[in-house]
Amino acid sequence: MGRWEPNARGRLATAALELYSERGYEQTTVTEIAKRAGLTERTFFNHYADKREVLFATSGEFQELFVRSVSDALKSVAPIDALAVGLDAISGMLTGQRDCVRARQAVIMANPELQERDLLKLASISATLADALRRHGVTEPAASLAAEAGVAVFKVGFERWLAADGECEMSRLMRESLDELKAVTAGGQGVF
Amino acid sequence: MGRWEPNARGRLATAALELYSERGYEQTTVTEIAKRAGLTERTFFNHYADKREVLFATSGEFQELFVRSVSDALKSVAPIDALAVGLDAISGMLTGQRDCVRARQAVIMANPELQERDLLKLASISATLADALRRHGVTEPAASLAAEAGVAVFKVGFERWLAADGECEMSRLMRESLDELKAVTAGGQGVF
Repeated sequence: MGRWEPNARGRLATAALELYSERGYEQTTVTEIAKRAGLTERTFFNHYADKREVLFATSGEFQELFVRSVSDALKSVAPIDALAVGLDAISGMLTGQRDCVRARQAVIMANPELQERDLLKLASISATLADALRRHGVTEPAASLAAEAGVAVFKVGFERWLAADGECEMSRLMRESLDELKAVTAGGQGVF
Repeated sequence: MGRWEPNARGRLATAALELYSERGYEQTTVTEIAKRAGLTERTFFNHYADKREVLFATSGEFQELFVRSVSDALKSVAPIDALAVGLDAISGMLTGQRDCVRARQAVIMANPELQERDLLKLASISATLADALRRHGVTEPAASLAAEAGVAVFKVGFERWLAADGECEMSRLMRESLDELKAVTAGGQGVF
């Protein structure tokens, strides 16, 4: 089934992201991606189901790391602190990849269908985090709310990281976002 | 352009939801919806762009009410309390409609494409809430985090409302969810 191509998967991902950025996601074909990567279409389909999957190929790994880090931390700390540990772990995973992540995000935000898929992935992370929290004895609705809070902090910290000029540590922005969420929820007088 | 049909829009929405529930969203055609409602396809397209739009026709109204209520409240109370006012307003809008909302939600959850669209609507509400908060002087990232928190509380309260047996006031569940979020975020020791 075809000869082995060194780092075909990575080359295809790079080529796809370049083409999506240059001419738009809709306008790019698998044929063009394979050509840019110096590979065949057949090789493309050995690695990815379709051109959309190239953009979401690492989502599973990302979710797994986030949820596993939170689960491990839940053995010894409170839910909100376990979420902080998870946010720190995924910051580590994304460190040094901001240009690439930024290009990917620009492609996603330019296409409602990709944006919807991205939101579905986040919803899946939230559901899996809530599962993990329940397994560690957190009751509902606290488990779901903690999970949603974790994803909310991630979303805001992630956007700030993408938007920041110059060097900027994602883990610091995540911690700041979490502190802001704490301040916001603690800020009211209770109106009912 | 066709004679006036009394409450055509509502009849089409009811017929569509019935058919989506009975035989599935994918399997239902606009022809069948119009027929069930005793109307023509042409009348359908006078009211809705496609069969998906029937499910999301009130999303704009919902978002408008949520954001307007929060904006009004921000004149006199803290962000988290303004969100509570908004959650109370949308609870009022949905009161007495649980069976219908439940049927709609079941259709959406059975179809990834509809689920993605639903999440996009929630993301749009979050972005619009964040705008409103910034207009009232809340700085970033607090504005985005407060908006995300408001949507998180809505999601969890909404799911609990749909899942509850018997009579159940949505506004009470929203308040409980908000209190749980406050408890969760206040619960940690800070791990960094």
